[in-house]
Amino acid sequence: MSTIQSDIKQIAKSAREASLKLANINTGVKNNVLLRMSEELLKNGNAIKEANKKDLRAAKGKGLSKAMIDRLTITDKVLKTISDGIKEVAGLSDPVGEVTRMWKRPNGLLVGKMRIPLGVIGIIYEARPNVTADAAALCLKSGNAVILRGGSEAINSNLAIAKVLQNACRKEGIPDAAIQIVPTIERDAVLEMLKLEEFIDLIIPRGGEGLIRFVVENSRIPVIKHYKGVCHIFVDESADLDMAEKVCFNAKVQRPGVCNAMETLLVHKNIAKEFLPKMGKRYQDADVELRGCAETRNILSYAKPAAEEDWSAEYLDLILAVKVVKDMDEAIAHIAKYGSLHTESIITKDYSNSQRFLREVNSSTVLINASTRFSDGFELGLGAEIGISTTKIHAFGPMGLLELTTQKFIIYGDGQVRE
Amino acid sequence: MSTIQSDIKQIAKSAREASLKLANINTGVKNNVLLRMSEELLKNGNAIKEANKKDLRAAKGKGLSKAMIDRLTITDKVLKTISDGIKEVAGLSDPVGEVTRMWKRPNGLLVGKMRIPLGVIGIIYEARPNVTADAAALCLKSGNAVILRGGSEAINSNLAIAKVLQNACRKEGIPDAAIQIVPTIERDAVLEMLKLEEFIDLIIPRGGEGLIRFVVENSRIPVIKHYKGVCHIFVDESADLDMAEKVCFNAKVQRPGVCNAMETLLVHKNIAKEFLPKMGKRYQDADVELRGCAETRNILSYAKPAAEEDWSAEYLDLILAVKVVKDMDEAIAHIAKYGSLHTESIITKDYSNSQRFLREVNSSTVLINASTRFSDGFELGLGAEIGISTTKIHAFGPMGLLELTTQKFIIYGDGQVRE
Repeated sequence: MSTIQSDIKQIAKSAREASLKLANINTGVKNNVLLRMSEELLKNGNAIKEANKKDLRAAKGKGLSKAMIDRLTITDKVLKTISDGIKEVAGLSDPVGEVTRMWKRPNGLLVGKMRIPLGVIGIIYEARPNVTADAAALCLKSGNAVILRGGSEAINSNLAIAKVLQNACRKEGIPDAAIQIVPTIERDAVLEMLKLEEFIDLIIPRGGEGLIRFVVENSRIPVIKHYKGVCHIFVDESADLDMAEKVCFNAKVQRPGVCNAMETLLVHKNIAKEFLPKMGKRYQDADVELRGCAETRNILSYAKPAAEEDWSAEYLDLILAVKVVKDMDEAIAHIAKYGSLHTESIITKDYSNSQRFLREVNSSTVLINASTRFSDGFELGLGAEIGISTTKIHAFGPMGLLELTTQKFIIYGDGQVRE
Repeated sequence: MSTIQSDIKQIAKSAREASLKLANINTGVKNNVLLRMSEELLKNGNAIKEANKKDLRAAKGKGLSKAMIDRLTITDKVLKTISDGIKEVAGLSDPVGEVTRMWKRPNGLLVGKMRIPLGVIGIIYEARPNVTADAAALCLKSGNAVILRGGSEAINSNLAIAKVLQNACRKEGIPDAAIQIVPTIERDAVLEMLKLEEFIDLIIPRGGEGLIRFVVENSRIPVIKHYKGVCHIFVDESADLDMAEKVCFNAKVQRPGVCNAMETLLVHKNIAKEFLPKMGKRYQDADVELRGCAETRNILSYAKPAAEEDWSAEYLDLILAVKVVKDMDEAIAHIAKYGSLHTESIITKDYSNSQRFLREVNSSTVLINASTRFSDGFELGLGAEIGISTTKIHAFGPMGLLELTTQKFIIYGDGQVRE
């Protein structure tokens, strides 16, 4: 066994041991740890910023883009946001131990389902070091041990943050191994981690599509993920066009770099001539590049032609694909063919069309008359978000604390046997 | 692309298309198909039995064991059981479309979660051809398309059953591709199937540990499975010893060849001398071979010595490992170390021990004062069972119709945008 193999195995094994203890720690203790973490991240701000400077120097040396460097940088303001986020997690209700249902069988057995932690969660992510603290807090609150494998460009920042979090655990009597960082930047470490199904219960990859495909192809452990968000809005012929304009503008422009931003706009042919010129003007004013089908370009001469690959593109930028469709059938079929099961919205005043869209579009979040940007754990009221799933297994859509638990059967008997 | 690759891809693609239709078919139509299937399996009994004879001849030629041949044989009685099973599925309530929760956000958005089918389910199984009909019925009722890949030894029987089921679909206007059999016995077909994450949402392998490990190692599609059932009963010092005797006898002897049968008995040292001789006598009378720890063998001289591997063995036979433990801590630690997260039971009269066992044992089914044999979809009241999961993701324990669905977010707005 190589050193990396044995190191990773040791990390996973101690995480499994810690998880057995974590599963049975009371909420009050977990909240105390979280509040202590929140405080100590601020107290140890200088040490974290020093470590971050090392990462920043290396990043500049490697010529990383300004956007990447921005995301990597830990300022006092970033630290305050991280600290506040952890405090909020302390305020969320603890899902562990909840009995969600209980029923009686004809033979007198009382059968119930009780929420328990998943056990050990591996998070494989890129970029922002704030994920280190956010994910650790959510895993701890839901009674899970976590193994964090951040991007190589943030390794010093991640280790410094984790050290503070682990100290807070230790001071409250929680095993250090509740929160662990994979301390190497070798890719083999990830491959090794993905084999340890005996010790790790779930892998959540967060980052670009390449990273996520690598994880899915190599993991024996269940993976919850989304590859990308190709979100659609369909403006129906009955839509309130002012509302459509406001919502479509928000969904594309308010924050174009995130997975729940709209990437393709579908417009009913009967209102295209009225709607598209006004909508197009607003997009032009906001520097949004439009890529349209032939019919769109008949109406908006300045739109570029959309190629086949535009219909499945996740631009994450001020670019929008636009297609005029002849009816609802075509809109739904287009979404089924090119969509990513992430988030789709219809703008309509028609009752029957609204219900049909809700029923027939099988994405993880389906909206009527609202911006796709609401597909987010905080916005939907989950209290927090550990990620978004477009895999239908376990969780579908934004995931909060509940999605970090499973339910076991609990059975109260008085001597029943099977005949 | 080889012929197998393109055949399997075509099957999976047409399953995906069928699944989009199935997701929106009303319960009444689904029930009509199921009732028709149930009838036509009996009407076409001769054709199915003829196909089965081909399989039986081949099996005898290959020298399969009598037990294997018994499981493969389709008699009129087996057909009647299959037919009745499908009729029962028609009687179960349809989970699709249920809105399980709905809440309002401060901005007026009404957010809910709605049950929808998973989409396309691949079932990879060995042995009994009745799985073909059972699994097809459960998938259809929950609105899923299914791709069935049975064992090579049952290929003719499986194809004959599937033909009847597909005819029933066609007559009720449901696409044939709702139920498909992989028509080849090549193992490459399975490998190919496991790559098609674009078209298949979930794989459920059912069979021996070897088959299941092969599937987990090679699948890019989420897999729900259990490798084995190493189920324990812990007889606490406060146990009602008559109850303990009755339950421990039932858990081992009533049907030893199934995954929820007890494989290891843990006995508190303070009652071992009273309990083991009586219990041992009953096991001896039933030809159960005991393999004990040193202390067990001090009490039961006829017990064979247990080796380390006995503690993690799934015998599926009239063999039982027996260990005397010094207390509840040792019992729980033993289960955590050697158990399979399947099913464990405690026999006790002590309130606090019963609650502690329920809380601290993190298996998918945990019982107090009842036989492990109740860990079964029918027995727990799920109405049916598609399999048992010891993976904590998505489902944990016996899985019924609900576990063949996921929940999407549905959101009713009136023009909301994000600030």
